[in-house]
Amino acid sequence: MSHKKLKIAVDMDEVIADPLIKFIQLYNRDYNVPLDLIIAPGNEIHHHVPEHANMKWFEYINEKGFFRDLPVISGSQEVLKALNEKYEVYIVSAAMEFRNSLEDKFDWLNEHFPFIAWTNIMFCGEKIVKTDIMIDDRIKNFADFEGRKLLFSSPHNQLITQHERVNNWQEVAVKLL
Amino acid sequence: MSHKKLKIAVDMDEVIADPLIKFIQLYNRDYNVPLDLIIAPGNEIHHHVPEHANMKWFEYINEKGFFRDLPVISGSQEVLKALNEKYEVYIVSAAMEFRNSLEDKFDWLNEHFPFIAWTNIMFCGEKIVKTDIMIDDRIKNFADFEGRKLLFSSPHNQLITQHERVNNWQEVAVKLL
Repeated sequence: MSHKKLKIAVDMDEVIADPLIKFIQLYNRDYNVPLDLIIAPGNEIHHHVPEHANMKWFEYINEKGFFRDLPVISGSQEVLKALNEKYEVYIVSAAMEFRNSLEDKFDWLNEHFPFIAWTNIMFCGEKIVKTDIMIDDRIKNFADFEGRKLLFSSPHNQLITQHERVNNWQEVAVKLL
Repeated sequence: MSHKKLKIAVDMDEVIADPLIKFIQLYNRDYNVPLDLIIAPGNEIHHHVPEHANMKWFEYINEKGFFRDLPVISGSQEVLKALNEKYEVYIVSAAMEFRNSLEDKFDWLNEHFPFIAWTNIMFCGEKIVKTDIMIDDRIKNFADFEGRKLLFSSPHNQLITQHERVNNWQEVAVKLL
């Protein structure tokens, strides 16, 4: 077993796909929220919209197509391609919360990360995965995980200090390649 | 941690959902394969159809709707409902091989197993899950699994002798409840 590649579980949203830009665009369309909105450290997007609209994200995210055209997070394609040579890379997304996201996420992965085989894609709820490393922006996914945890920076997690942090994919490359 | 419920990963096809009956119906429609076909021990369905049709299952299974109306395996609803009280039950299906199965399997589970929350559904390729027990009809899914493995009987696995076997959901109940 010792010569087997280490396994890495990589999250999607806010790690390789950027839903925040799309949320801001939709809130701009519906509520004139500025397109250059900066999300304050520790906040979620819904903290920055008018109070009567702060559950609107749930409507947006449940629409067919929401996840199909999300921007790719900078550097994720190049670094994951390189990681995929050295490690066994799995994409692990809590997609099951949003039934209409399943096909969109699958197609998005095939378009932008064609080197990730279907065998290495996992859509779940709770992340009960057994890998050696996990890269994720939500610490709740680290709760029962026993491997090395890399907290991928996103506005909402900026105030969290107890985890090994990576601010971008270049920092992931430095740590893992 | 010791008072936490044990976790069980439960497969879908040939464990709680029956694709074999549907395959036989489709082969009957297209190739007059008899509806009362018995699959011989150790065989897959494609061993029992005319040679020129033996990859047709791959076409059937990729069609939208194939997984939406599969029969429920006898006893699985009652026993999983009871197991779900005592254990943390996860449905873990290698659905990712068939893009068009994702929504169908999700909707099928919501219809027939509404007591399984989205947090406990996982569609994957390789089953890199960390649970205490796995119930599955394919021994390839046991390869890297360290917990207790229960091989759920299906024609194709009848000749396999090296695993703890359950022939039906009543036997699962006897072992786990």
